[in-house]
Amino acid sequence: VTIAADRRAGAPAGPEDPGERMTAMMRRLFPLCRSITGDGVRATLDIVGERLPLERHAVPSGTQVFDWTVNDEWNVRDAYVADRHGNRVVDFREHNLHLVSYSAPVRERLTLDQLRPHLHTLRDRPDWIPYRTSYYRRDWGFCLPHRQLEAMDDGPYDVVVDSTLAPGELTYGELLIPGETDDEVILTAHVCHPSLANDNLSGIAVATELAGAVAAMPARRYTYRFLFAPGTIGSLTWLSRNAEVLPRIRHGYDERQFNAIGFDLAVGRLSRTPHGEYPEYHTSADDLDFVQAAELVDSYRSILRIVDVLENDGVYRNCSPYGEPQLGRRGLYPSVGGRTADDAVMAMLWTLAYADGSAGLLDIATVAGLDFADVRAASAALADAGLLEPVAEEGSSGA
Amino acid sequence: VTIAADRRAGAPAGPEDPGERMTAMMRRLFPLCRSITGDGVRATLDIVGERLPLERHAVPSGTQVFDWTVNDEWNVRDAYVADRHGNRVVDFREHNLHLVSYSAPVRERLTLDQLRPHLHTLRDRPDWIPYRTSYYRRDWGFCLPHRQLEAMDDGPYDVVVDSTLAPGELTYGELLIPGETDDEVILTAHVCHPSLANDNLSGIAVATELAGAVAAMPARRYTYRFLFAPGTIGSLTWLSRNAEVLPRIRHGYDERQFNAIGFDLAVGRLSRTPHGEYPEYHTSADDLDFVQAAELVDSYRSILRIVDVLENDGVYRNCSPYGEPQLGRRGLYPSVGGRTADDAVMAMLWTLAYADGSAGLLDIATVAGLDFADVRAASAALADAGLLEPVAEEGSSGA
Amino acid sequence: VTIAADRRAGAPAGPEDPGERMTAMMRRLFPLCRSITGDGVRATLDIVGERLPLERHAVPSGTQVFDWTVNDEWNVRDAYVADRHGNRVVDFREHNLHLVSYSAPVRERLTLDQLRPHLHTLRDRPDWIPYRTSYYRRDWGFCLPHRQLEAMDDGPYDVVVDSTLAPGELTYGELLIPGETDDEVILTAHVCHPSLANDNLSGIAVATELAGAVAAMPARRYTYRFLFAPGTIGSLTWLSRNAEVLPRIRHGYDERQFNAIGFDLAVGRLSRTPHGEYPEYHTSADDLDFVQAAELVDSYRSILRIVDVLENDGVYRNCSPYGEPQLGRRGLYPSVGGRTADDAVMAMLWTLAYADGSAGLLDIATVAGLDFADVRAASAALADAGLLEPVAEEGSSGA
Repeated sequence: VTIAADRRAGAPAGPEDPGERMTAMMRRLFPLCRSITGDGVRATLDIVGERLPLERHAVPSGTQVFDWTVNDEWNVRDAYVADRHGNRVVDFREHNLHLVSYSAPVRERLTLDQLRPHLHTLRDRPDWIPYRTSYYRRDWGFCLPHRQLEAMDDGPYDVVVDSTLAPGELTYGELLIPGETDDEVILTAHVCHPSLANDNLSGIAVATELAGAVAAMPARRYTYRFLFAPGTIGSLTWLSRNAEVLPRIRHGYDERQFNAIGFDLAVGRLSRTPHGEYPEYHTSADDLDFVQAAELVDSYRSILRIVDVLENDGVYRNCSPYGEPQLGRRGLYPSVGGRTADDAVMAMLWTLAYADGSAGLLDIATVAGLDFADVRAASAALADAGLLEPVAEEGSSGA
Repeated sequence: VTIAADRRAGAPAGPEDPGERMTAMMRRLFPLCRSITGDGVRATLDIVGERLPLERHAVPSGTQVFDWTVNDEWNVRDAYVADRHGNRVVDFREHNLHLVSYSAPVRERLTLDQLRPHLHTLRDRPDWIPYRTSYYRRDWGFCLPHRQLEAMDDGPYDVVVDSTLAPGELTYGELLIPGETDDEVILTAHVCHPSLANDNLSGIAVATELAGAVAAMPARRYTYRFLFAPGTIGSLTWLSRNAEVLPRIRHGYDERQFNAIGFDLAVGRLSRTPHGEYPEYHTSADDLDFVQAAELVDSYRSILRIVDVLENDGVYRNCSPYGEPQLGRRGLYPSVGGRTADDAVMAMLWTLAYADGSAGLLDIATVAGLDFADVRAASAALADAGLLEPVAEEGSSGA
Repeated sequence: VTIAADRRAGAPAGPEDPGERMTAMMRRLFPLCRSITGDGVRATLDIVGERLPLERHAVPSGTQVFDWTVNDEWNVRDAYVADRHGNRVVDFREHNLHLVSYSAPVRERLTLDQLRPHLHTLRDRPDWIPYRTSYYRRDWGFCLPHRQLEAMDDGPYDVVVDSTLAPGELTYGELLIPGETDDEVILTAHVCHPSLANDNLSGIAVATELAGAVAAMPARRYTYRFLFAPGTIGSLTWLSRNAEVLPRIRHGYDERQFNAIGFDLAVGRLSRTPHGEYPEYHTSADDLDFVQAAELVDSYRSILRIVDVLENDGVYRNCSPYGEPQLGRRGLYPSVGGRTADDAVMAMLWTLAYADGSAGLLDIATVAGLDFADVRAASAALADAGLLEPVAEEGSSGA
């Protein structure tokens, strides 16, 4: 893959620029009320499905998944807190985050004191709405700016949560892009967060763009699997249904479940800033303005560079090991000497110095402090000149 | 052991607060004229013995101890330098440090020039008395502030050292607190320095306090040995008489002798500031004002935390390894989600992620950057919930 | 060897001070027109030969050397660019760097536009002459300050390079100083750069001084080989002719060729500032003023310290391992105690603590953070006192 791979013929319809495509997708996905189950997840997969031929899976509520059980499905028609004049002072229709996710149905008249245990605010960020969930304990609640809470009188208030919590399904989408080997790279994005832009919408947008680019590559060494699933229970559900796939996973990214001792997959997490290290995390301040197109593109291109390493790393042997071969007469060295060597020449010298049949190109780039792409280009130029030959690696299966 | 272990029933008499107990002990011990042998050592062990049931050992002068020989015993009745009017210008009775330790008896009239080779001062700290010894060469001398030396006229002076240097004994105290195994932790404090507060009095006070806390623990995995002995010759004497104990020592603290190649015990040194890295070291400025109760308590609690690790570190296996177990339904996870996890939850997640039957709790705390106490509490909570089980470690003998 | 070894009787004629000797040699060598072959190399070896009994080698042009071929020999009588009034505006006789090294003969009248592709300048250092070469492509050119180029009118100019490029020889000098073993330390200096002081003249001067000091040592554990050869093709030529020597090389310094995968010698580079990390590199600003006598001496003494380690590192065993031996009664410890130990005593204590028959003196110095010379002196004192004995190292051949 190359960084320009997204400029391919036959790319999905939409804006030409990946940054614009990703932000356009995020604008459509942002208002949906996603949770770990429900209509919002399905609507999200519909939109991703416009770009990618997703396979959609539905797992019934009540299914046992390791230590967990798939939840009942949750959907919301309306939810609000209204004052005695009927004015909605907290309204789910204004912002998904106003309602605690998985709130059970309720219809009551309560004083502020009675209501207060069900209200969540952030004292030190008085203008932000927090994001709260109650997936595994039947409860209900509202989230609101602390300043708004302080302005509320003693009530009474009409409290309505018009939701359903009933047997249904957990839904996730999956895309398998075959490669020359069955060895797999798995990339997952969570689809369970409501109107929060950086966490998780940006992940959905970048993963969609990546899947398009990987699918458009003329050939792939690895098989790539993209997973769009809710966090924790979604990851576990996928893991419980794919035991035969796990031994083939060579690289991937997800979070706590894939790395659990019983699975121990070689996965990590790719994020610009870990959760909990930015104050906007899990609040209404994580909105569309918080995410910049340039940073989405930067993340997308960074992961493409990782794919480039996965696809193109390899082990070579220097065929002219007794001193430096004369690069000049092969057109690989500037004919006028005396200048400090440029990066391309340095990449060739480092490659010749370390390509002993055991070190890989990424190893060499790391030792040399050079970009992998430079070392890859150097190895290609040296191989063309007959100065380097690839070494078959043990254990790379093509079966 | 817990940090609150010192608040136990049946604690030795004295102030309730460990800081007050330690400073009170130091105030009593400070004026005694300790050296590597003599009445000062015995008086010191008497005072420690009020708190701890010390076993006292006496080794005769002349006993061969590896490359060394136990010294003659040294005691002092009086020592001074008096001017021609009979005024004591340097007086041992005013400060122990005025007399070079192990000074041989002398009674002479000398001019300042004759006296000068026997006078020790610190030019760059003109108000401090240095601490000097001559254990292994028969000599005598006085230490004084440099400013005082400069004020002395040509003399003559009457010089008196009314000391005895004669066959006697080297004395040390020992306390063995048995545990469930014979594996030993040895803690030593030196008892050879005269009126010097940080080096060694603070060590005696902290070791005494620690011994009390360890003895009060309801059970101990390790056997603990506390040693109150003079430096070098005292440590060597103990080593020469305890060959059968050495193979059982697992942890400890002392200095150069225990680590010598022929013993090579797993010991280290616990001190806030190493000797030679503070100017007051081995001078009269290392007095009772130089040592703060808060720092004594901090040292004491720090070593208790080490004891906590020794006693409670262990290897566990995650019994629910396929993804994260559902902590919520076991009451181990906050029912309202969305917040950044607190330290207790993080400690459980780290423990579950690394408790593979080979990593110990201290390893996990180190990897996670968490306090050992948090990881220990997490492991206890998880074990109570049936999510974690202890793994028998090889080689831990209880015989 | 000791740092004072250069103060030996029978030292070569010249100033007494090594700094003065090195700068005097550099002043004589600076004006010579060195390249990878030719009269300048031979004149350089003549001057080094006044100090050292160099063996001189000549390898004919056209000789195949691994992937390379020994060049034709290059010599220059005169070279200039003159304006239409006959004034030399660029003149090889004023500075060697004005002529691109290995320029082929030319005699033409050219306008500035025709001449311009053959002119090399540094835009961002407009007062410096760059150093350029064209060893392996037949070409010619002149180097000049950019400011000077800007002052030139449209011409025409008379361009003369009165050089010869014809079969001859590649010349290098070699000095073998035998030691007790055949194991070799190789030190090389390049002799191919024209009037450039730091790179390479300082290397020639320091290597010459070192060779004198090593030759004057009363005995040597290692055999030392000093090589004065042109870069790349010179190093490769020596490597191609000394296959039987290579297995004996234990330590050395050179650059890319000696480390090539096919040779993989244990060599490194000794330089104060690597090439490319100072702007004066390969320009006329790398002149005699750029190199300070004090830094030459510092480099020389630093390498002597390395030789000291190579010659004197060794493995010892503590013969009195049960605690610290009593240094005082052997005169190795100050009789008056209480002071912080000085470096000499600390070096003895560290040596006793680590001399277990496997750690070497350099290992001990590194662990202790002490100078190797201090640990070496400590080991000598302890061995004299019977407290330390040398351990025969495996694999040190004396055959």
